Amino acid sequence: VDYQHVQVPFEITLWIMLASLAKIGFHLYNKLPSVVPESCLLIFVGLIMGGIIYGFNDRSPPVMDSDIFFLYLLPPIVLDAGYFMPSRPFFENMGTILLYAVVGTVWNVFGIGFSLYGICQVKAFRLQDVSLLHNLLFGSLIAAVDPVAVLAVFEEIHVNEKLHILVFGESLLNDAVTVVLYKLFRSFCEMPTIKSLDVLAGVGKFFVVGLGGVLVGLTFGMTAAFTTRFTKDIRVIEPLFVFLYSYLSYLTAEMFHLSGIVAIIACAMGMKRYVEANISLKSHTTVKYFMKMWSSVSDTLIFIFLGVSTIGENHEWNWPYICFTLIFCLIWRALGVLVLTFFVNRFHVNTITGKDQFIIAYGGLRGAICFSLVFLLPDFHRKKLFIAATTVVILFTVFIQGMTIRPLVDLLAVKRKRESAPTVGEQIHIRFLDHLLAGIEDISGHWGQYYWKDKLEYFNSKYLQKILLREYDQPKSSIVLLYEKLERKHAIELAEAGQLGHAPSPPSMINNDRTVTMDKKLEDTLNPDVLDNIQEILARNLYRIRRTGPAYNRHTLPGDTEPVEHAKEILILRHKSL
Amino acid sequence: VDYQHVQVPFEITLWIMLASLAKIGFHLYNKLPSVVPESCLLIFVGLIMGGIIYGFNDRSPPVMDSDIFFLYLLPPIVLDAGYFMPSRPFFENMGTILLYAVVGTVWNVFGIGFSLYGICQVKAFRLQDVSLLHNLLFGSLIAAVDPVAVLAVFEEIHVNEKLHILVFGESLLNDAVTVVLYKLFRSFCEMPTIKSLDVLAGVGKFFVVGLGGVLVGLTFGMTAAFTTRFTKDIRVIEPLFVFLYSYLSYLTAEMFHLSGIVAIIACAMGMKRYVEANISLKSHTTVKYFMKMWSSVSDTLIFIFLGVSTIGENHEWNWPYICFTLIFCLIWRALGVLVLTFFVNRFHVNTITGKDQFIIAYGGLRGAICFSLVFLLPDFHRKKLFIAATTVVILFTVFIQGMTIRPLVDLLAVKRKRESAPTVGEQIHIRFLDHLLAGIEDISGHWGQYYWKDKLEYFNSKYLQKILLREYDQPKSSIVLLYEKLERKHAIELAEAGQLGHAPSPPSMINNDRTVTMDKKLEDTLNPDVLDNIQEILARNLYRIRRTGPAYNRHTLPGDTEPVEHAKEILILRHKSL
Repeated sequence: VDYQHVQVPFEITLWIMLASLAKIGFHLYNKLPSVVPESCLLIFVGLIMGGIIYGFNDRSPPVMDSDIFFLYLLPPIVLDAGYFMPSRPFFENMGTILLYAVVGTVWNVFGIGFSLYGICQVKAFRLQDVSLLHNLLFGSLIAAVDPVAVLAVFEEIHVNEKLHILVFGESLLNDAVTVVLYKLFRSFCEMPTIKSLDVLAGVGKFFVVGLGGVLVGLTFGMTAAFTTRFTKDIRVIEPLFVFLYSYLSYLTAEMFHLSGIVAIIACAMGMKRYVEANISLKSHTTVKYFMKMWSSVSDTLIFIFLGVSTIGENHEWNWPYICFTLIFCLIWRALGVLVLTFFVNRFHVNTITGKDQFIIAYGGLRGAICFSLVFLLPDFHRKKLFIAATTVVILFTVFIQGMTIRPLVDLLAVKRKRESAPTVGEQIHIRFLDHLLAGIEDISGHWGQYYWKDKLEYFNSKYLQKILLREYDQPKSSIVLLYEKLERKHAIELAEAGQLGHAPSPPSMINNDRTVTMDKKLEDTLNPDVLDNIQEILARNLYRIRRTGPAYNRHTLPGDTEPVEHAKEILILRHKSL
Repeated sequence: VDYQHVQVPFEITLWIMLASLAKIGFHLYNKLPSVVPESCLLIFVGLIMGGIIYGFNDRSPPVMDSDIFFLYLLPPIVLDAGYFMPSRPFFENMGTILLYAVVGTVWNVFGIGFSLYGICQVKAFRLQDVSLLHNLLFGSLIAAVDPVAVLAVFEEIHVNEKLHILVFGESLLNDAVTVVLYKLFRSFCEMPTIKSLDVLAGVGKFFVVGLGGVLVGLTFGMTAAFTTRFTKDIRVIEPLFVFLYSYLSYLTAEMFHLSGIVAIIACAMGMKRYVEANISLKSHTTVKYFMKMWSSVSDTLIFIFLGVSTIGENHEWNWPYICFTLIFCLIWRALGVLVLTFFVNRFHVNTITGKDQFIIAYGGLRGAICFSLVFLLPDFHRKKLFIAATTVVILFTVFIQGMTIRPLVDLLAVKRKRESAPTVGEQIHIRFLDHLLAGIEDISGHWGQYYWKDKLEYFNSKYLQKILLREYDQPKSSIVLLYEKLERKHAIELAEAGQLGHAPSPPSMINNDRTVTMDKKLEDTLNPDVLDNIQEILARNLYRIRRTGPAYNRHTLPGDTEPVEHAKEILILRHKSL
């Protein structure tokens, strides 16, 4: 037996296999996942695994490597989150999300850091050797809400879209703040003296790290879209580019100490639209499926490793410090949400209700990012205390908060997500209102979100689409696309029921299909020649409507160049008929 | 800039990106790939890359690591080959393939080894220090036809199915022989004396390595099929199991020094049928697409690395040895094919023609497997000579033979692959003949391939399907499945042309669809009530035929239990109608 030779891939495959089998196992018992979130079950499996390893080896089981976490496990989850992010609610609530993510996180970091420093001054707790800087450093890693944990819990409780995007968006975007503060305090810890200039540089870094991430992400996203223009002859490697470019954006951002999470989200959101138009339907299915699969496996592995890493002798159990950490985390988050929402509500018509505020504060789960950051701390004599406190906070938020949030959502009757997709009528209405509001903002000189959205759309259709799309014709309206999709779905259903081709002929079988019966009635009242004629006219003109109708937008008002072309076409048609 | 931190994933991603972009680049010029095989172009790109690296660094560019090749690059290609292997021609020509793969490879190894040893005795060439064992070791690595190179060339020239499977099957199955002989001679090189017992053990190993690989593969394949029984609630990780189990089968086989290639092929061919029935349609698309994508990328990387590794100072250019290696490779292969085919043709009605023999001999391309094996050789003073000879043989076969095989196939007018899928009539005919031949073999007591195939099918439907399939109902005949698929395709086409639902009504549009017009005519001649009646009767009975018809097989003759059920159903129907 030559185990050495295959050890690395063999063990990786076995871990993934274990994770997948655990997932299958939970779903065999339908009752279990409806009560306990999957993340809790997975941590539990990890705890058992860790216990077994500890029992047999008599030493601490291997801890999740921070490099593995940040380089291999986190990117798939963030990519999945970014690619499937509902862009409309995200951009509509952008201001609120940024406020929570930036101001809220800074508030939490300093709140937790300073109050823990206060606790350290109590002599009875024997914590006087923990300096203010160390407390702030600890605060910076424990304050950030974790996207993986939030996603795992919020995907199961189905709260309304706005509430979901507020918590989830915050957890994604606070990465920039966490990165800056964590690195700042870490470098301060190693410096002999701190000048005020350093503090100012730290503030400047916020913008560099966040906006730099967005820039890197968008650059790679546009390149990805541009590349997929040329893959028509080798469809089979199309999905690859989506993954390669987004991963490269993450790695590049990390390389320049920018926010990798922000970069990969910008990349995914930027390229999605163009890539979807360029690649084939099957490639797209593969991209979607593989992204979901990959993120689901990463997610599972992270929670199992969290469980495994908890077991062992890395901890220093100073209970006062640990308990106060937990209490401060809860209190400062609740206060922060209250204060920030007060300001947000003053400027918005659609206010955030008290119930929503409670769920936002309660949904501030901590997870694997804190855990990896605490292991990345430079070695100093109280590191094990920080590890213990982080572990307790994570387990408390994931187990206690994660398990009770669903009953609480039920109890408070928080507004739920609507299950049905918006109807065509609603879509038309929304689109109409968008145009109207953009026009009003334009005239009134108020450069609000509708104005900018409209400008962006104009820029997109005038320049970006021409460069990035392979078959840049007139853009198809989403309504036409929806119609085509429904038509295709309907056809497949008919074929599967075995009614295709024969369905319309026997009258007994088509009672449920109104349009066909109407066709039938028309046919009965008119003679065939007239009918043929009508159909021909309709077919021709509908073609014309199809081509010009959906392309309506505010910048090409009817009357620009249309009439000339239209007149031409009528002439040609008349010539033909003569 | 913190490059160290992201180096490993960054460089891997960049190499894959380069490979994919190179592929896109070739396909932008449509003429290029039709003249030069892609493998040649990729090696060429690799040579340029290697030249650039060599020029800048002034030292040999990095050589493809054998571990990376065998553990990460080869498995996806072999998995893809096994999963999409046309099983019928493969099993029909199993005997011939095994003869070529086992006897043919042994013949080549000893032929090349001994004649090179003869060359080494010529004093003028200064090669007297290369021993017989070293020559045999070299023969064992240079003799094997390479599946990656064969696949890359034969996929483009579209020869007939039998010829393709003979060359490709040989290249896959000779792995077991190569592994045994290579390891045998390597251990002999390190032994002081060789006993005859060692030689006997070597012969025994053939069977262990080959059959062991099949056993490992089938075990994992069946486990994979069994696992996918339980994935109904988490469709998203279904594709994962296909990849995980086949990779595990490869690694396990390699761990026990069995043939990994044989194992992964057995696993893929074994599980395919059951996995396809268990997983959803979208999962299946993802599996297929991802397998193709992955193998295509691996393939590209292998050829680029081959090119890169060729540049450098690893070579000892002893031209007589190199030239004679090339000549002996060609001669012994040609002789081997001639002799073996002579025996094969004596026992078969469907003989292998002279043209086919030429293409089989000429299609014996060498590739990355030889290349990796030669770098795995233990260090001795003539290793660089072997590396040089291997490089020349690979480049000659891939470039000269790979580029000229297509014109030769045209020139000789070798029978091509039929482009169209078999018609339903042909499929029924083939199935009927299979049953007939199985019956004849059974009665005549000749246990041929049809007899065994039939027994296997019986075992499959009686035991395996019940254990491995989730929804084990009556097995659907392939004809019914084909019909459903065609119906679905037709429906989508109709929907995309915008004719769904409206198509049958206007008579002008359905002239090309004969069945519908016939329906129409029937409708015209009969009155609606009678028509309804007929349709109801047809619908009921067709349902019955659908359920019992396709389930016909030799082991459940009509008359077993059917009549009772049938009678019952007729009774129930009559009761209802009364």
